[in-house]
Amino acid sequence: MAKPSPRSPLAVDLPDLPAIPGVRLAAAAAGIRYQGRADLVMVELAQGTAAAGVFTRNLCPGAPVDWCRAALRSGRARALVVNAGNANVFTGKAGAQAAAATAAVAAALVGCPDDEVFIASTGVIGEALPHERITAALPALHASLREDGWEQAARGIMTTDTFAKAATRVAMVGGIEVRISGIAKGSGMIAPDMATMLCFVFTDARIPAEPLQAALAHGVERSFNCITVDSDTSTSDTVLLFATGQAGNPAGDLGDFAVKLNELLLDLALQVVRDGEGAQKLVRIDVAGAVSPQSARRVALAVGNSPLVKTAIAGEDANWGRIVMAVGKAGEPADRDRLGIAVGGIWMARAGAVVDGYDEAPVVAHMRGREIAITVDLGMGEGAATVWTCDLTHGYIDINGSYRS
Amino acid sequence: MAKPSPRSPLAVDLPDLPAIPGVRLAAAAAGIRYQGRADLVMVELAQGTAAAGVFTRNLCPGAPVDWCRAALRSGRARALVVNAGNANVFTGKAGAQAAAATAAVAAALVGCPDDEVFIASTGVIGEALPHERITAALPALHASLREDGWEQAARGIMTTDTFAKAATRVAMVGGIEVRISGIAKGSGMIAPDMATMLCFVFTDARIPAEPLQAALAHGVERSFNCITVDSDTSTSDTVLLFATGQAGNPAGDLGDFAVKLNELLLDLALQVVRDGEGAQKLVRIDVAGAVSPQSARRVALAVGNSPLVKTAIAGEDANWGRIVMAVGKAGEPADRDRLGIAVGGIWMARAGAVVDGYDEAPVVAHMRGREIAITVDLGMGEGAATVWTCDLTHGYIDINGSYRS
Repeated sequence: MAKPSPRSPLAVDLPDLPAIPGVRLAAAAAGIRYQGRADLVMVELAQGTAAAGVFTRNLCPGAPVDWCRAALRSGRARALVVNAGNANVFTGKAGAQAAAATAAVAAALVGCPDDEVFIASTGVIGEALPHERITAALPALHASLREDGWEQAARGIMTTDTFAKAATRVAMVGGIEVRISGIAKGSGMIAPDMATMLCFVFTDARIPAEPLQAALAHGVERSFNCITVDSDTSTSDTVLLFATGQAGNPAGDLGDFAVKLNELLLDLALQVVRDGEGAQKLVRIDVAGAVSPQSARRVALAVGNSPLVKTAIAGEDANWGRIVMAVGKAGEPADRDRLGIAVGGIWMARAGAVVDGYDEAPVVAHMRGREIAITVDLGMGEGAATVWTCDLTHGYIDINGSYRS
Repeated sequence: MAKPSPRSPLAVDLPDLPAIPGVRLAAAAAGIRYQGRADLVMVELAQGTAAAGVFTRNLCPGAPVDWCRAALRSGRARALVVNAGNANVFTGKAGAQAAAATAAVAAALVGCPDDEVFIASTGVIGEALPHERITAALPALHASLREDGWEQAARGIMTTDTFAKAATRVAMVGGIEVRISGIAKGSGMIAPDMATMLCFVFTDARIPAEPLQAALAHGVERSFNCITVDSDTSTSDTVLLFATGQAGNPAGDLGDFAVKLNELLLDLALQVVRDGEGAQKLVRIDVAGAVSPQSARRVALAVGNSPLVKTAIAGEDANWGRIVMAVGKAGEPADRDRLGIAVGGIWMARAGAVVDGYDEAPVVAHMRGREIAITVDLGMGEGAATVWTCDLTHGYIDINGSYRS
């Protein structure tokens, strides 16, 4: 069992999350793996709720991901059940049966078909999920659902997270104010695609499943798919978006829903990076001058995933030579003699060599801060991209060298 | 400046390296960066020496790599100059001039064209190489060259290495015994392609440049290109092979030269992994059942580069779930429900789930050892590959969080 880590120095406080009409939620301690804390979350959604989802591209996904992919076909949702402590991944037929049994009990409680129940699990891989603990806990949990259970839910899905993650926004759709709120968990095994392990977003907007799915896929591409903690892609990554339709907005125009959804997804994604295992610094990598946006993104990820860049940042070392190395290993079009690198907005290198009269002092001061900005100008074209990561510290080794023992 | 790390627990002793006719070498302290140790190595090669080389695929290579690529066109070599402490990478025109000036002085001492001098530099990136310290030290160094300078040379090229690396073999070519000896350095920024930072191999065999290059390229593919410490690809990676021809073997048949060369290259490559920054365990990853050897290699590298797999090994945790995750993120053809995973030769998972009656005890005992064996059977085809790596420990963070400061 992981020793609890101290709260990340990059943590942000949980915002106040107002009720969303059509959403009731709560958490309970089912004793799946953790003792003395909530580890099971249930959400009931009003009739008529539309669902959208984006899942891991890992080719060995967990049973809950298989379940959700199938459930999403109907585009309808009435319930969500999430457990922490056991990911129900690589558990064979027993894993699929555990997901099905959980959904069946939740469906009976809510009064809906099994395939309108969504399931997510996070935690250790390869151990059988004791789903009878979940199904035994569900009736009392269902009886306790409430409109203000947000903080409970945000805490109930945590594993190695050191702070609970949530965000909320207001959007205008057809002249009606709608609310979008989301909770997320994740701190290691974070890389595109997908980045967070689990994220659940709820809105009272009335949006059919198809445009809802399009909005979610677009938003994830520029948020969760642009963060990386350790280049490892979870087998459980799941982002679900539920729209209850209770706001009563007219169908058709989405107003600024997509803009606010994108904001909220990026907010949650950055909270995941802020809780990157062992993270002491949040790092933003802007790459410009690439031959295409895709090429820029791959260069930014090569920098963001480089252990040598990340340990240098941990050591507060403005070691731009390692950034050069990472750019060069990305395999994307680059020309050493056009390359420019800035840290904290200060250009250290231009056209393949150190800047004349380069003064390291302001860069060193920037490196001592909590938020580090790296800019790479490839000088090849117009492609640009931004990726966020964290530093690689002793804390990462501590957490991951003893997760199970 | 890096604090000296303790000798790797995986270190091997330096073998006795007998003289190779046509090769004289020595080291000297030029004060390039380190104080109180040799940091400059020179090798003089007999007239008629053929050269072969394989270099980093990093798109931001150092000036010495540019120099060697050009020098290799003639296929002839008379001298090699290597410095430690400064890689002469990302140093613009000054970097190219430093390489040229070094070659010119060495060529004058040996009495050969400049382009028969090979240059390599290793150490910090992005700082101007004070090459006048090299050229000032070369005359005395040249005067001190000797046939038995191998240990000096192996030590003189070290940077964060904790032990000197060398290997030697005897091959039979046309009924004549020939000797192959090599030295290598490298411990971080190690990933295909290429893996080691620097490796220099010498033989007295008479082999023309073209078959020499073919033999080297083939051997590197199965040795240095199959190891990874941290997925970072150095801008300086260089393997050079020099054949003095002094053994007097008849031209034509190469005998078992290629076999012995491959053995020697793998020996040196594994010494580099054994000195992986912070390494406490040597890890061998065998992937079988892939759709092709290339696919197997990519899966093996995904496992070998996964920070979560590597920290689990550091924690002596037989966490095969993380191996599943790494296989799945490789993006290669895989089917969760056919996947098998063994550690220490003991199958933990078969056909997508834990083995019935799986007893962790012998696996735990294996994880406590210094040499860890991971086997992945994808169950898809006949492709197989082997990759070597090391664990990811606090030592890696210590070394790389404070390399320059």
